[in-house]
Amino acid sequence: MRAVRYDGTGLYLSDIPAPVAGPGQVVLEVTAAGLCHSDLAVMSRPPEALPYKLPITLGHEAVGVVVDVGAGISGLAEGDTVAVYGPHGCGACRTCRSGAENHCPHARWAGILPPGLGADGALADYLLVPHSRHLVPLRGLDPVRAAPLTDAGLTSYHAVRSALPRLPPDGTALLIGIGGLGHLAVQILRALSSAQIIAVDMAADKRELALRCGADTALPSTDTVPDQVRDLTEGVGADVVFDFVASDATLRMAARSLRPGGEISIVGVGEGRLPVAVNLVPLGAVVRTPYWGTQSDLVDVLALAREGRITVEVEEYALEETPLAYERLARGNVRGRAVVNPARAPGNAPGQACAEEQRG
Amino acid sequence: MRAVRYDGTGLYLSDIPAPVAGPGQVVLEVTAAGLCHSDLAVMSRPPEALPYKLPITLGHEAVGVVVDVGAGISGLAEGDTVAVYGPHGCGACRTCRSGAENHCPHARWAGILPPGLGADGALADYLLVPHSRHLVPLRGLDPVRAAPLTDAGLTSYHAVRSALPRLPPDGTALLIGIGGLGHLAVQILRALSSAQIIAVDMAADKRELALRCGADTALPSTDTVPDQVRDLTEGVGADVVFDFVASDATLRMAARSLRPGGEISIVGVGEGRLPVAVNLVPLGAVVRTPYWGTQSDLVDVLALAREGRITVEVEEYALEETPLAYERLARGNVRGRAVVNPARAPGNAPGQACAEEQRG
Amino acid sequence: MRAVRYDGTGLYLSDIPAPVAGPGQVVLEVTAAGLCHSDLAVMSRPPEALPYKLPITLGHEAVGVVVDVGAGISGLAEGDTVAVYGPHGCGACRTCRSGAENHCPHARWAGILPPGLGADGALADYLLVPHSRHLVPLRGLDPVRAAPLTDAGLTSYHAVRSALPRLPPDGTALLIGIGGLGHLAVQILRALSSAQIIAVDMAADKRELALRCGADTALPSTDTVPDQVRDLTEGVGADVVFDFVASDATLRMAARSLRPGGEISIVGVGEGRLPVAVNLVPLGAVVRTPYWGTQSDLVDVLALAREGRITVEVEEYALEETPLAYERLARGNVRGRAVVNPARAPGNAPGQACAEEQRG
Amino acid sequence: MRAVRYDGTGLYLSDIPAPVAGPGQVVLEVTAAGLCHSDLAVMSRPPEALPYKLPITLGHEAVGVVVDVGAGISGLAEGDTVAVYGPHGCGACRTCRSGAENHCPHARWAGILPPGLGADGALADYLLVPHSRHLVPLRGLDPVRAAPLTDAGLTSYHAVRSALPRLPPDGTALLIGIGGLGHLAVQILRALSSAQIIAVDMAADKRELALRCGADTALPSTDTVPDQVRDLTEGVGADVVFDFVASDATLRMAARSLRPGGEISIVGVGEGRLPVAVNLVPLGAVVRTPYWGTQSDLVDVLALAREGRITVEVEEYALEETPLAYERLARGNVRGRAVVNPARAPGNAPGQACAEEQRG
Repeated sequence: MRAVRYDGTGLYLSDIPAPVAGPGQVVLEVTAAGLCHSDLAVMSRPPEALPYKLPITLGHEAVGVVVDVGAGISGLAEGDTVAVYGPHGCGACRTCRSGAENHCPHARWAGILPPGLGADGALADYLLVPHSRHLVPLRGLDPVRAAPLTDAGLTSYHAVRSALPRLPPDGTALLIGIGGLGHLAVQILRALSSAQIIAVDMAADKRELALRCGADTALPSTDTVPDQVRDLTEGVGADVVFDFVASDATLRMAARSLRPGGEISIVGVGEGRLPVAVNLVPLGAVVRTPYWGTQSDLVDVLALAREGRITVEVEEYALEETPLAYERLARGNVRGRAVVNPARAPGNAPGQACAEEQRG
Repeated sequence: MRAVRYDGTGLYLSDIPAPVAGPGQVVLEVTAAGLCHSDLAVMSRPPEALPYKLPITLGHEAVGVVVDVGAGISGLAEGDTVAVYGPHGCGACRTCRSGAENHCPHARWAGILPPGLGADGALADYLLVPHSRHLVPLRGLDPVRAAPLTDAGLTSYHAVRSALPRLPPDGTALLIGIGGLGHLAVQILRALSSAQIIAVDMAADKRELALRCGADTALPSTDTVPDQVRDLTEGVGADVVFDFVASDATLRMAARSLRPGGEISIVGVGEGRLPVAVNLVPLGAVVRTPYWGTQSDLVDVLALAREGRITVEVEEYALEETPLAYERLARGNVRGRAVVNPARAPGNAPGQACAEEQRG
Repeated sequence: MRAVRYDGTGLYLSDIPAPVAGPGQVVLEVTAAGLCHSDLAVMSRPPEALPYKLPITLGHEAVGVVVDVGAGISGLAEGDTVAVYGPHGCGACRTCRSGAENHCPHARWAGILPPGLGADGALADYLLVPHSRHLVPLRGLDPVRAAPLTDAGLTSYHAVRSALPRLPPDGTALLIGIGGLGHLAVQILRALSSAQIIAVDMAADKRELALRCGADTALPSTDTVPDQVRDLTEGVGADVVFDFVASDATLRMAARSLRPGGEISIVGVGEGRLPVAVNLVPLGAVVRTPYWGTQSDLVDVLALAREGRITVEVEEYALEETPLAYERLARGNVRGRAVVNPARAPGNAPGQACAEEQRG
Repeated sequence: MRAVRYDGTGLYLSDIPAPVAGPGQVVLEVTAAGLCHSDLAVMSRPPEALPYKLPITLGHEAVGVVVDVGAGISGLAEGDTVAVYGPHGCGACRTCRSGAENHCPHARWAGILPPGLGADGALADYLLVPHSRHLVPLRGLDPVRAAPLTDAGLTSYHAVRSALPRLPPDGTALLIGIGGLGHLAVQILRALSSAQIIAVDMAADKRELALRCGADTALPSTDTVPDQVRDLTEGVGADVVFDFVASDATLRMAARSLRPGGEISIVGVGEGRLPVAVNLVPLGAVVRTPYWGTQSDLVDVLALAREGRITVEVEEYALEETPLAYERLARGNVRGRAVVNPARAPGNAPGQACAEEQRG
């Protein structure tokens, strides 16, 4: 089968054997695989700094059709369309038994790694899923629009849900960076809260997107954001801040915009770091680094999409166009989320169109 | 194999085929099976009122050794000693994916029933467990003392954990009925809270047991309990009340002892009913009917036992002595929990000893 | 000053001395006072069954202008427009210090009673407020539309907020009775949740109101509601049920519509009672009898109104028309909430118009 | 009256006019005032960096007897013994109305400052308290042992309570620094949780103190602590870490000892800073900088002391010996908490005794 592999130097399309479902395992025919900033982060690190061996097939946002059901699995049949829960845990500990496999303290030592982030991922014709509990039925969702829900959606939802107890009905949420995750977080907040939503982005079209997604205000990313937030909150500051960029500048903006007792959720995997001490952040502040989400979070986020509460902006690519898509992502040119559809013929990718436009 | 069966008229020891593990299933050799008041409730109802067909093998508190592992199961091997999580859910819905299979809204319609309460149970030489996720390692716990943890312990723990947010550090918990569940609930409260614990029981030896388990006060069950509770709480009343009896009298006692905004947890399956309306219970009261517990609750309760925080009082019986044990349970004569050990030879059951003493 | 008094036999307009603010107290000129079903409940009980002496001035939903500030009060000035927090507690205990004065366990024994429900209330030209902490600034809200927020709004908000943790994003809330409280609860749920909202009412115009307030479905109150709820929830049942009627019939409807682990919030003060026992409600059910709300709940509900998230339907009456208004309320003819404006001249009350229409 | 003043250069005992209670205010005769590391932090900063003017009277842990009650106050009488809630808020906002005045977003802009940290404090014969809501009855507690409860106790309790939801019954809490706050936090954890408690301190006598307070293990502060924690938790790591030191070294220790999804509570006001980014702390980590506590937290912590669940180790000093006490505190020589008793005659302070011992 075809697979987009990364070997530490670059991406290449390779022909590798298709997986076969062993006992308790499932093989999917991939119908959509989302691309993520964290893939870029992986490719920017020296290979020896990665906690797994290369090459691997990338792609950790996966949707597909069940084509091979291993022995011992019930409640799943060939032809079922499913989304893949990515942050696999050991499945047996207290944490995993409450569905929070994203916090499993045993996974790392046990060598359990997510598809595309250690195990072979979804940028291929077929994907091996090691346990049936990681599959959630799509129930009618469009695969290409659903794939980003498994990470961009799940991570945003988990971050928002975790921060909600600190956001009163007339409170204020500040979101920095309205990309693949940010534009979903705005919609999720709009669905679950009556709070004021302030979005910040450098790009005018992304501020525009934020407003369409339900933000009350969209501000350019400048040094005056903390003052503007204070003006919009009668001097209080934001109750919660989500930073989907995580540069030093945005993290400083987050800390300066926060109210006492508020929460900063560092979702982005940027190069920045927030120095935390009692006198460096507002009194009583909480700083969280959310990671993906729980099993039930994924059920929730798919349900929100099914009800039309959240819609993913996508750019669709063929498998062969994956490098082009990552390039656009790295440049901040992707609107919403880039998704690879292995069944799609190459030739009409947004990047190409865009390049042609520029040429023309 | 031997099995204690109930056919709607009575109990009998029967020889039935031992189960075989199909794909995804596990067979245990039973090393301990606890007896429960809810078994008596089953046997007191007309068979046609039960939501399942008879005869079945009773026994829903199960501990055993893995002897047959079906296809597709990983992380489990023959010889493993395990406890069985009883309230099976569908395993796929949002509720089950957070581990709260005890609240699965699909189980009933899907015909998924707990062992001993619809499916064949643990009062037998072998037990079929339909999915490996229902097994939690014992890790050194004594089987006979561990079996009651899967229901008496799990149910008590779940009830206590659910009520804890309403119990301040210097608050007061009232527990009515210090039997199999109650004596564990006292210990769990003692481990997890600094609140005052008031135990109520008709029997002096059970009040004695309550004090040994960590209660601050033990009162006989009389009409003056609500006044005594008020005296012990500077007029406030109990923050939470656990009723392990659930007769009309104890439920009335619960409502009259409660503070505004407090919680009554009706754990017992007695014949009583608490009429609830705004003016019949204290302002802002919460009345809960907890049922068993979650997957992670079972991990917790086994851990508390392993650390010596909770110890189950048990009376041990041979499989043949099951009817005698139920008899003693119905009469309120069991101290703690009655547990059947299929490997035990008959002849030394507490009931017999007791009967002999009475004769002698 | 004028005051609407109740003496155990009936209502009458009386001329009594206006209150004077003692130290720590405040006197308001009443600009709006809402009427409530609980007033009818008071008037239907034998006087000797009331926990206070008659006659008193009724009216426990109060908005006014500060006209007299007692010694020792800071941060409050004559001319300030304020809403009154009604469920006064002792102010000193743990419960009150977290703002939950509605659950103060000392108030009753200390003889601390809400205005209009023991102390003299707001159906008068002036109202004495015993402590400045009970006042929350209106900040621009219209007095007549704001008055019902202090009880109908506050109670609904408190009930909804308490139940929200049990309502997933794609869950279902069932609301029975779309009157003064119910039509606000629908709006509050719509603002704070993405869940499906099903409203039930006998009257077509109230079902209409529910849909305008944001309900997804409005059903007539019949025996088939539980089945319809199950059809609308893929067999699951409602996650939370709010019963604003609380008759035996609606409470039965509530219990039959609920999912395992769900919550029934009995908000109404009807004549019904819900018998609770393990086998009478769904497994793991929680039954709550919420009472009014906390201090911060009142701040929240006023904020929601200020943002336009909730709007109270009101019928405005002159002080002299209070009996007429209660009559309409008793007959179920009030759309939304009846509010008395002491500054209003009599003659155009909805009841009169209506009576004239009927005559005409 | 006598007062210990700080003017930006040093401490001096001064004679200043005793305060008089204006309307709504209360004057206490101080019976005990605790000393705190944050006083040292204040004195180490350049005066112009402080958000208030000097000189002021230090002392923010206050217990006293009511000697002057301003107009408009009820429920308080001369002779009452009370503790002072220090983190004053505006008293009117949503946050303050839920008792969390420590998170009031208005206090700072409104110039509302705690006694001893901006307003004149308790190291004096008398203390002015600006509002009666800040007073909580001692109800029999010894003043000298109670004073530290208002900050060392309250801050520890608030930090522990906030972290408890992340600490399972068989989880592990790591506490770094067993001084005035740490030795109370150990006791509070022991009272409220069954988790394993690991204490870390450089000094053997403080490790000894930790064990007496209820810690399961006490480790010297070395680079191997994270590995030792992992050994003591079967590889999982600590669920929550409290850092009462907050140097770079202890914060690094905290981050390296934590499990995924765990919480680091930075309580200490040391010179360190924890750099936070997704890859710098465990996945899903929460970093909190708790500040003092809520109104109801203070009620709780006094109650825990009254029940004997927590006991403050104190060294008692005369007012004149305050500089000596701060000196000992700065050197890390104080066991537990240093408390000044204005009624005490100088001459027997631990410092002097100690100095004499050293001389002798």
